[in-house]
Amino acid sequence: MTTQTASTQSEVVRAARRARTAAAELAVLTRAQKDQALHALADALVAEAPRIVAANAEDVARARENGTSEGIVDRLTLTDARIANIADALRDMTALPDPVGEVVRGSTLPNGLELRQVRVPLGVVGIIYEARPNVTVDAAGLCLKSGNAALLRGSSSAKASNTALVDVMRKALSGTAVPMDAVQLVPGDTHDSVKELMQARGLVDVIIPRGGASLIESVVTGSTVPVIETGVGNCHVYVDADADVDLAVELLIDSKAQRYSVCNSAETVLVHKDIADAFVPKALKALKQAGVKVHGDERIVSYSISGSDNNGDGGDVDGDIVAATEDNGDVVAATDDDFRTEYLSLDIAAAMVDSLDAAVKHIREYSSAHTESIITKSQAAARAFTSKVDAAAVVVNASTRFTDGGEFGFGAEIGISTQKLHARGPMGLPELTSTKYIVIGDGQTKARNSNL
Amino acid sequence: MTTQTASTQSEVVRAARRARTAAAELAVLTRAQKDQALHALADALVAEAPRIVAANAEDVARARENGTSEGIVDRLTLTDARIANIADALRDMTALPDPVGEVVRGSTLPNGLELRQVRVPLGVVGIIYEARPNVTVDAAGLCLKSGNAALLRGSSSAKASNTALVDVMRKALSGTAVPMDAVQLVPGDTHDSVKELMQARGLVDVIIPRGGASLIESVVTGSTVPVIETGVGNCHVYVDADADVDLAVELLIDSKAQRYSVCNSAETVLVHKDIADAFVPKALKALKQAGVKVHGDERIVSYSISGSDNNGDGGDVDGDIVAATEDNGDVVAATDDDFRTEYLSLDIAAAMVDSLDAAVKHIREYSSAHTESIITKSQAAARAFTSKVDAAAVVVNASTRFTDGGEFGFGAEIGISTQKLHARGPMGLPELTSTKYIVIGDGQTKARNSNL
Repeated sequence: MTTQTASTQSEVVRAARRARTAAAELAVLTRAQKDQALHALADALVAEAPRIVAANAEDVARARENGTSEGIVDRLTLTDARIANIADALRDMTALPDPVGEVVRGSTLPNGLELRQVRVPLGVVGIIYEARPNVTVDAAGLCLKSGNAALLRGSSSAKASNTALVDVMRKALSGTAVPMDAVQLVPGDTHDSVKELMQARGLVDVIIPRGGASLIESVVTGSTVPVIETGVGNCHVYVDADADVDLAVELLIDSKAQRYSVCNSAETVLVHKDIADAFVPKALKALKQAGVKVHGDERIVSYSISGSDNNGDGGDVDGDIVAATEDNGDVVAATDDDFRTEYLSLDIAAAMVDSLDAAVKHIREYSSAHTESIITKSQAAARAFTSKVDAAAVVVNASTRFTDGGEFGFGAEIGISTQKLHARGPMGLPELTSTKYIVIGDGQTKARNSNL
Repeated sequence: MTTQTASTQSEVVRAARRARTAAAELAVLTRAQKDQALHALADALVAEAPRIVAANAEDVARARENGTSEGIVDRLTLTDARIANIADALRDMTALPDPVGEVVRGSTLPNGLELRQVRVPLGVVGIIYEARPNVTVDAAGLCLKSGNAALLRGSSSAKASNTALVDVMRKALSGTAVPMDAVQLVPGDTHDSVKELMQARGLVDVIIPRGGASLIESVVTGSTVPVIETGVGNCHVYVDADADVDLAVELLIDSKAQRYSVCNSAETVLVHKDIADAFVPKALKALKQAGVKVHGDERIVSYSISGSDNNGDGGDVDGDIVAATEDNGDVVAATDDDFRTEYLSLDIAAAMVDSLDAAVKHIREYSSAHTESIITKSQAAARAFTSKVDAAAVVVNASTRFTDGGEFGFGAEIGISTQKLHARGPMGLPELTSTKYIVIGDGQTKARNSNL
């Protein structure tokens, strides 16, 4: 066991060292050289599609043997058409500007020093991800375009696919200016090798986990290499007192149900008490029609079971609306856990709030700070919400589902950061870079030329 | 002991929770409100100077009793004049633009969504620092100006001073829009309380250690809160084949000896073999005059002990220069450790290299990636060096000593980041912020209005 571990360790460290050497070469390549390599990767993947599909068939067969759900089997499966799409995504990256070398700011200091802050690659990027083998190629391509070496660690369920994909890419690189070791699978398939990767501080510059909350949590807590957290989305839709009810229902349904298994789908709806009578019955009906189960607080639940004075604030209740209780859908009582849960399913938590500030407070307490939205006609409410809510994206009068590198026009994304350091929100190519200051002088010394 | 720990833990967590609440209030204050608070802090520090000086006298007396060196006692000491300077630094911060609210980028998407990426405070910033009590005020001021709550953890040697400073600042805040709990000392003075701070992920947004290499290392490895590494500088001066020898000597002396106890002073000089005969004897003489002890590799050492063919490459040697061996200063043989050491003293490591690429390779192996400089008349060499060397600052034909927020014109700095994520190089106010995307729509749904 000790020997096993030691040998796994040194293999991972050796791979990281090779990546580091490759990164130094890759960092100084031109955009033309990198784009040419991306085309070479795309062409090779298409040419070698039969071999990749055959390898993938092993993973798919093993997944079926293990009783994996068809949804996950589908995400694991590669076909000629899917490989063509993956290759096209690489070709699309060639159209994106090279972030490396961009001058972020610059000035000439009073002493004549010329100062430029310039984007440079991060260096070696470790990516730890779950089932989908397309991530193997996407991540390699984004790293390559941004001048970074990629150390890829997919799940063991996609091992044959990932091995074939990386093998094809590495061979394709041999005919380009990009060193082969700029794209590597992390060797070994034990948990020790992941641990080794997460502890390779000084060799690996950043680790980006892509997957579910538990994967991300284990990387965040186990890594001494800096981590960029991605993708856990406990997103809220807040329906303000002054909202258009029909629009609010439409935006809620789109946010929750247009696609529910993604991080930017809504998991909780908060309703201002003054609009509850008008909004909640319609919303419950629409949610029921969309197949969504509602986990409501006491005041929300009251709309599905009682005929009068449902919002508990003693106000008048519109009998016509409340009369529609049989259509009010499937509402169960929510626990505190429901408000903390990223369902990724056709479930939604729902609560009534007494004010915009109460909604902000609820969001501050429960949100994963991914995407938070308000639906309102009030300029003052929109301004207060966007100013007070701290999240990667704060949305007014639109679906939460737009928080995405593609929708935001960034071309491609490596993930959606839900942390505050380095990058927040959809991460495109610039977020895969660092900067350095280049200072050009003609003999300035501190003794003679200090600006201070 | 267990009880003690438990109570310390909850005290730190309670302080962090109060900071979090304060941060939410502080985040939405205007620049005018924050600047007014900075003035209030400055005025209070000056008004309460006698009390602060008295508290400081306790720390100074204890330091002397413990046999602390006079250099450190001097850094610890506060006087009326020094307090006035500290207060002026706060007033100077009011002249700096507020980073919060700055629109970093923005666009209108094809579907009409208006997208803005806006700077927001990080939230709660933990600062762990060593002796100098002026950091207590500087850090609090920079955090306040950038909308962040500060959790300050100074060294126990400055405890009385820091307690008095924070008490004065908190009282001054009570008359302003900034909540008192935006500035707090971390309670408790055991190592457990530091550990507790470093583990307060989710409550504390970032920890910035300021101090020596061992402090920084312990924070980096012990923290689950994201850390910004600062300030370890193993900086190099590379004298290219094509350098002006007299300028190279002047820049080397300024880089090493203008002030040697700071992170941007040079710790190693690398000399191209083709300029060694002309440069090394002059450099050794100048270093000796500046009181600098040289730790040289074999080829550098040969200049201080032999009279001919010193550079070992069989070339001609200028007898006049080499004849000056008695003036060639104090050169001892360097070990590998010397090249890894941030001396912060009147010592320098020196090595001869066969090419610019060899210099780049040496720097890649040994540097802390703080500040690296080349002295050359060659445009090609300057371009190759600035492109291939990856460091926070890469300098051409100037002293290394300019890597500093003040010199770069950033007004104030919280430290110099030597990591690649989030911030690199001198960190001013913008580096104490994150961003969020604000997305304004008029009813866009993914179902109807996707850009993809």
